[in-house]
Amino acid sequence: MTTQQLNEQILLKKSFLCVGLDPDLTKIPGHLLETEDPIFEFNKAIIDATHDLAVGYKPNTAFFEAYGIKGWMSLQKTINYINDNYPDLFTIADAKRGDIGNTSSMYAKAFFEDLNFDSVTVAPYMGKDSVEPFLAFENKHTIMLALTSNEGAFDFQTLTTNGKELYKQVLETSKTWKNSHNLMYVVGATKAEYFTEIRKIVPDSFLLVPGIGAQGGSLSEVCKYGMNDKVGLLVNSARAIIYASNGTDYAEKAREEALKVQKEMEEIINSRFQV
Amino acid sequence: MTTQQLNEQILLKKSFLCVGLDPDLTKIPGHLLETEDPIFEFNKAIIDATHDLAVGYKPNTAFFEAYGIKGWMSLQKTINYINDNYPDLFTIADAKRGDIGNTSSMYAKAFFEDLNFDSVTVAPYMGKDSVEPFLAFENKHTIMLALTSNEGAFDFQTLTTNGKELYKQVLETSKTWKNSHNLMYVVGATKAEYFTEIRKIVPDSFLLVPGIGAQGGSLSEVCKYGMNDKVGLLVNSARAIIYASNGTDYAEKAREEALKVQKEMEEIINSRFQV
Repeated sequence: MTTQQLNEQILLKKSFLCVGLDPDLTKIPGHLLETEDPIFEFNKAIIDATHDLAVGYKPNTAFFEAYGIKGWMSLQKTINYINDNYPDLFTIADAKRGDIGNTSSMYAKAFFEDLNFDSVTVAPYMGKDSVEPFLAFENKHTIMLALTSNEGAFDFQTLTTNGKELYKQVLETSKTWKNSHNLMYVVGATKAEYFTEIRKIVPDSFLLVPGIGAQGGSLSEVCKYGMNDKVGLLVNSARAIIYASNGTDYAEKAREEALKVQKEMEEIINSRFQV
Repeated sequence: MTTQQLNEQILLKKSFLCVGLDPDLTKIPGHLLETEDPIFEFNKAIIDATHDLAVGYKPNTAFFEAYGIKGWMSLQKTINYINDNYPDLFTIADAKRGDIGNTSSMYAKAFFEDLNFDSVTVAPYMGKDSVEPFLAFENKHTIMLALTSNEGAFDFQTLTTNGKELYKQVLETSKTWKNSHNLMYVVGATKAEYFTEIRKIVPDSFLLVPGIGAQGGSLSEVCKYGMNDKVGLLVNSARAIIYASNGTDYAEKAREEALKVQKEMEEIINSRFQV
């Protein structure tokens, strides 16, 4: 999916919601455990119930890898299900990969070719040659960690270096990399006050924003400081939506939660854009 | 495997060689492509031919994920083969994972429980709560990136922050984390002159050292500056050993290359330790 197509979907659906798929067998409704592939059944029902309210889905690979080959099969079925049934959805493999050049190329192949995701998240610590192999894929998007939503973000990301915080240096340096137009960035919603500074460095880039919902970030704050003139945000919510209920009504309750967020997003879009 | 057991294996084998398993279908001998699981067949033959010369094996997950479910199955067969046949070998999942707390727990479960690796590599960018879930596993080892072997290491890792380079800050901060005794660190062989400074911060920790062989690092330089009084090094070589030949003699040639490295290590151990 191109950036322009993603922008169109956002205005069409009046939503920039991304639903995080973090399936955990200890949290999903018990009746699903009797099915052949509980994780896929869970994801499928969540996607079917919310696909018109969200523009993207973000399976986090950890929640699949934890179940070994069975989990990896559930991941493949999930991405195939989205691509086959809802080709207008933007898909994110939340994998946070990164390695030396020839190895990053294999990760890029895994997520962009084998699994056919639109995008993958990567970590910046190993620098340019660990990220450029991902950027080489045209119309695929590489979403690099900048400022994350967790407490540990303050351990290294906000340290001052070259007179600026490390995450700002990461943003600036990455703009010089080959095919940097294929970059997006992760910026946590729990740190809304930082968005103003971030937008000075990357005014046009999409920001993937985790931390709304269970992690406590505020949607209106994020939009106030982080939105650009094309929206430019993908706001992720996982637990608050997918675990809204652990009964047989889980998909219905997930829709209710997603609808609340989408309505809030619609208001924001209507108030800021003449659409 | 405990750290003490690893130390014993090193002195017993007079080797601190770790063989990197980076199986690439475009590089492995052509005749293997006709077998049912070429990647596993390749790994198995390499392991059988070199197991007495190495103390550890390090499959890089990227080279398995690139082949989807089939690749993940090859990874599982490879680790099971080592655990079943050579329980004295130290196993490293080179995965470079790291995410917010509840997600890192799932990765730890994937590599320590589901696959039963002795250790896993992790990235430090997301800080304390992204690494501590790995450290919670007793007698499992978390190998954190400090200073990597690639060019991109100079993009962020060597930036000055708090009056010291970022990788030094990463080392220092990590020592304050819960169960930090389960930490090891990745330090690239291509940066041998940095080992002296690193040993001032982490004198007792094991260092996993990639970059020998194809990447150009020098074993004697690494040992000169990086060895501690219990050896304290795991030196990885991948391409130079596993791709020593792409003919039917690949396992034999891999053994020859591994033997060269082991002999060099034996000399170093004999000269520095009265064993």
